[in-house]
Amino acid sequence: MTSHGRLAGVIPPLCTPLTPDGEVDEASLDRLVDHLIEGGVHGLFVLGTTGEVSALTDAQREQVVVATVARAGGRLPVLAGAIDTGTDRVVDQARRAAAAGADAVVVTAPFYAATHPEEIRRHFAEVAARVDVPVVAYDIPSKVGTKLSPDTVIELAAEGAIVAVKDSSGSDVSLRALLSRRFARGLDLSIFTGSELTVDYAIGLGCDGVVPGLGNVDPAGYRRLFDLARAGQVEQARSEQDRLFELFGITAVANRTRRSATSAALGAFKAALVDLGVIAGATLARPGIPLDDAERAGVSALIAEFGPRIDAIVGAGTIGSGSEEPAGQ
Amino acid sequence: MTSHGRLAGVIPPLCTPLTPDGEVDEASLDRLVDHLIEGGVHGLFVLGTTGEVSALTDAQREQVVVATVARAGGRLPVLAGAIDTGTDRVVDQARRAAAAGADAVVVTAPFYAATHPEEIRRHFAEVAARVDVPVVAYDIPSKVGTKLSPDTVIELAAEGAIVAVKDSSGSDVSLRALLSRRFARGLDLSIFTGSELTVDYAIGLGCDGVVPGLGNVDPAGYRRLFDLARAGQVEQARSEQDRLFELFGITAVANRTRRSATSAALGAFKAALVDLGVIAGATLARPGIPLDDAERAGVSALIAEFGPRIDAIVGAGTIGSGSEEPAGQ
Amino acid sequence: MTSHGRLAGVIPPLCTPLTPDGEVDEASLDRLVDHLIEGGVHGLFVLGTTGEVSALTDAQREQVVVATVARAGGRLPVLAGAIDTGTDRVVDQARRAAAAGADAVVVTAPFYAATHPEEIRRHFAEVAARVDVPVVAYDIPSKVGTKLSPDTVIELAAEGAIVAVKDSSGSDVSLRALLSRRFARGLDLSIFTGSELTVDYAIGLGCDGVVPGLGNVDPAGYRRLFDLARAGQVEQARSEQDRLFELFGITAVANRTRRSATSAALGAFKAALVDLGVIAGATLARPGIPLDDAERAGVSALIAEFGPRIDAIVGAGTIGSGSEEPAGQ
Amino acid sequence: MTSHGRLAGVIPPLCTPLTPDGEVDEASLDRLVDHLIEGGVHGLFVLGTTGEVSALTDAQREQVVVATVARAGGRLPVLAGAIDTGTDRVVDQARRAAAAGADAVVVTAPFYAATHPEEIRRHFAEVAARVDVPVVAYDIPSKVGTKLSPDTVIELAAEGAIVAVKDSSGSDVSLRALLSRRFARGLDLSIFTGSELTVDYAIGLGCDGVVPGLGNVDPAGYRRLFDLARAGQVEQARSEQDRLFELFGITAVANRTRRSATSAALGAFKAALVDLGVIAGATLARPGIPLDDAERAGVSALIAEFGPRIDAIVGAGTIGSGSEEPAGQ
Repeated sequence: MTSHGRLAGVIPPLCTPLTPDGEVDEASLDRLVDHLIEGGVHGLFVLGTTGEVSALTDAQREQVVVATVARAGGRLPVLAGAIDTGTDRVVDQARRAAAAGADAVVVTAPFYAATHPEEIRRHFAEVAARVDVPVVAYDIPSKVGTKLSPDTVIELAAEGAIVAVKDSSGSDVSLRALLSRRFARGLDLSIFTGSELTVDYAIGLGCDGVVPGLGNVDPAGYRRLFDLARAGQVEQARSEQDRLFELFGITAVANRTRRSATSAALGAFKAALVDLGVIAGATLARPGIPLDDAERAGVSALIAEFGPRIDAIVGAGTIGSGSEEPAGQ
Repeated sequence: MTSHGRLAGVIPPLCTPLTPDGEVDEASLDRLVDHLIEGGVHGLFVLGTTGEVSALTDAQREQVVVATVARAGGRLPVLAGAIDTGTDRVVDQARRAAAAGADAVVVTAPFYAATHPEEIRRHFAEVAARVDVPVVAYDIPSKVGTKLSPDTVIELAAEGAIVAVKDSSGSDVSLRALLSRRFARGLDLSIFTGSELTVDYAIGLGCDGVVPGLGNVDPAGYRRLFDLARAGQVEQARSEQDRLFELFGITAVANRTRRSATSAALGAFKAALVDLGVIAGATLARPGIPLDDAERAGVSALIAEFGPRIDAIVGAGTIGSGSEEPAGQ
Repeated sequence: MTSHGRLAGVIPPLCTPLTPDGEVDEASLDRLVDHLIEGGVHGLFVLGTTGEVSALTDAQREQVVVATVARAGGRLPVLAGAIDTGTDRVVDQARRAAAAGADAVVVTAPFYAATHPEEIRRHFAEVAARVDVPVVAYDIPSKVGTKLSPDTVIELAAEGAIVAVKDSSGSDVSLRALLSRRFARGLDLSIFTGSELTVDYAIGLGCDGVVPGLGNVDPAGYRRLFDLARAGQVEQARSEQDRLFELFGITAVANRTRRSATSAALGAFKAALVDLGVIAGATLARPGIPLDDAERAGVSALIAEFGPRIDAIVGAGTIGSGSEEPAGQ
Repeated sequence: MTSHGRLAGVIPPLCTPLTPDGEVDEASLDRLVDHLIEGGVHGLFVLGTTGEVSALTDAQREQVVVATVARAGGRLPVLAGAIDTGTDRVVDQARRAAAAGADAVVVTAPFYAATHPEEIRRHFAEVAARVDVPVVAYDIPSKVGTKLSPDTVIELAAEGAIVAVKDSSGSDVSLRALLSRRFARGLDLSIFTGSELTVDYAIGLGCDGVVPGLGNVDPAGYRRLFDLARAGQVEQARSEQDRLFELFGITAVANRTRRSATSAALGAFKAALVDLGVIAGATLARPGIPLDDAERAGVSALIAEFGPRIDAIVGAGTIGSGSEEPAGQ
């Protein structure tokens, strides 16, 4: 439980806008925060994988948290990644994020050096014991090389070490196990999917929310999708998810023989945000290679066909204006 | 080329001795430095994988470099890992290491976020351009998830961005490619193997040296092995390598169903150093689980059977007391 | 389209009952076929991964198809795996299966030797062109090392080379892509999930059916789950899936430090079928190591707690006795 | 021990020449056998990975063994791959190969279904017990997904289940372990490296021979390299290995975005054999995509620069004409 209550709803992992020199572009970051809040999201997650956390210096990380917290102004919770290789390093990162105003920190399993499930459990327990804000467990085996077992997550939740989990493992069985065991144990654990292409399913199954990278581009679409799924409007939710699935095609525009998949996806998100007038430039943190002009034109074309529209945003506002406010319960 | 000349010889990756509380144990570190220098090694490499770099805080990392440089007193080069996830973070780490006195920094490919070979090349070039000490490329796909291609390494060497490479990929073809292309291009690139169990082969093939984790335990053995291999004494080199192969069995003593392979290996090195009276305790950096008493007894038994002996050390001193001094050429 | 119409519904991958000597136990196989048909399944899939196809000789494979087709007696379609390493070998296997009476063959990507997506496409197109029964594509990267891309599957369906796909990749994004693109292209492609723990989701999302290994043990449960999910009874479907999730715990009973995960799972299915009185013995095909007595007792305990019950089977019969008959449409 | 004595020396894995229709081209196969024997090889290995075994039908496999044995005429041992997914299938393959005249069979760990080390050990023991010719263990984790542990290999050798091992794992540590333990146990186990780019090293280390795919193209070069390495002529061996390393560049000519790495490499071997006039065509077994004309020209250029020459072949004959005859000891 954060100071904003139980975590739930749409909590996009913010891109980190950068100047051509690779410094944090605070003016663009402010506009991105506004764009997301206007889109109806329930929380903000900075310094995640989508935020290029692994490429930002400690000074830049602090700057991002301070600026985001200031712009958000307490209207919704701000989560910050405290993502580093080892336990004591994560404690350092988490304390800095908390001092900079983050409402919660998001923590992965240790990486670089191999770890055992029991070492992973100790890692989270130690971080939680030494940090003053709630901890969200982040299951992202594609980056850290190990999968958080549902057993470990449930045990950590039962001990009070974590308040939420973001499952970016892409494993439907794992997500199922988390939901079943949370129910069986009666735990107060928020379960988020990091899979932005299966939100209707995940919410229908009982997930509390989603952390969609594509939510940077179309926050209102994800808010609408979330509301529809929560309301059990299965067909409409599927239709909106299908549109967002097509929009996600922007991540496949860039030539992957010339850059990493990471740069192709993050470069596309930034290019889209430039196209929408939200941020000033599409520079990636070093050593990422951004999209070239032809690739950016391809992104623009997909946005024109499948992207956010004014009427859609208005519609989302209407649907989302009811009494339930997931992230600030 | 470092201030000590071209890098070559036996350069062990130092364990980081810790107090029971997980703080750097400087007295033990001093003894470890002495132990290695007395064993005849040609350089010291702190903050590597064996040094648990991924689990040490920035403050601890700095402390390790300062203490090691002070104890080494300029007698041999001190290399420091500048191992972090992204380019700008590595630059920060490398500058701190250089400021603390390191003669060179050891740098891996970026990790956590996926990278493309061209992004990896940019990473090393950028680090080299912004750091005042020589850069050693560290190829360790088991930790960072990507293999440094021999082409990239050779290109970086030709550009002057790196002075050496440590190949811990375990790929014999890759090592062969590096050696062949260095020769074909006439490059001044030091090539080290990180494979401590094939040193006779690697040196025979043309490698300049080895970075053996087991060298913490038996530095004189590795010095002797290196000298024999360089002298073309194939049978004797093989025999010494075979003994060290058996000694390496200490890394298989610990129960891996209770801890990670990393903790099993590093815990064994530390247990062995305690057994030999070099360091005070075998604590691993959090969240590592150290060996228990029974496992430590198993390590001691292997040391008794295959470990360093006084006569061996004397012998090594004799063999190694000739005029060639690889690391300080 | 098979001679039984469009494939849909619950089509379990049959275990292959073996005598203690490792020969096909036809009497047990007959009882298994009866058990499944009485449970209300819509089709039978022999010679899949669950059927230990990779360990059976060609003679045994033929025997399994002949016996199953005979026992099924045309009441429902019988699919047979034609699973082998290369194109011409698969053609041989598929022709034999068709000659033995199979209504369709199930084919994976080539394995052992690496393949390119275009080579995979050619593989399926060639098999389809040379075999007289419909081809079902089987996406099982955990076994064959490559993922069938949704693009390839859709292209093959558009060319008429495949009539169905079984997605055992566990990737929610992949399944979504198949469903979205099938809809967008208006293709007549049956989409099955191989994920027996997320059937309610998969059917809700638009899948045509499921191929559940656990369906050997509780066919009526899967039939009930399928019917509930198709009827949009979300809560009841979830409840039934949750029970089957717990029953799936039988695959985690066996000690995996003593045998492979494959043997642990398949050994548990067979032990359960022995416990239920369906088959005579739990022998695994060579070189699999079956469960020991203590482990089999663990399986029995889980079946007693979460397994199929008379009333449930009766209930399933009632629910499933309506006019819709998925697999034989 | 085969009827030809202990296995040793250069035993290339033969390509399988195919007609444009994908049938075995026996005339070309005869010429390939002649080419290899004239090059001085010590044995022939058909139906390996290089022989596209996984794509050949059972009828083709038998044809290859029969034809090769006939052409070899007892002058040197013929080994045949008995490579299939499960134990009983391998027994079938091995018996067919033996009946067709093979002197020994080459067997991998089971694949497709996951296996445990104990299941792998049972697999080899069972095959050995039921087959009348000697068994060679083939460690090729890149194809079968599991690594043969040195412990398992040594145990199988001690039991008499295998007479040799071909290590294509590319792991220098594994090879070292095999050699050390063979020596320590005093076992009569022939150890071959499958790594064609590190032959000088492997022979120097104590390996008995090599199974080089590139040996199809330049058998005399590998014979010469083997003889030099055995004679301890380190510099000359290295020089010959370096030339063959460059010649291996033919496997990197083909565009891998258009075909698999397997097809790129095997297509290059066949293109080279066409270029040298040994075989009639470069067709790959289905579904492999062969090299196009431009790529074949690239292969020809490399052969012109680094390939086999008359004088070299004459030289090899001279060097190899001594009294030691490795494979037929």
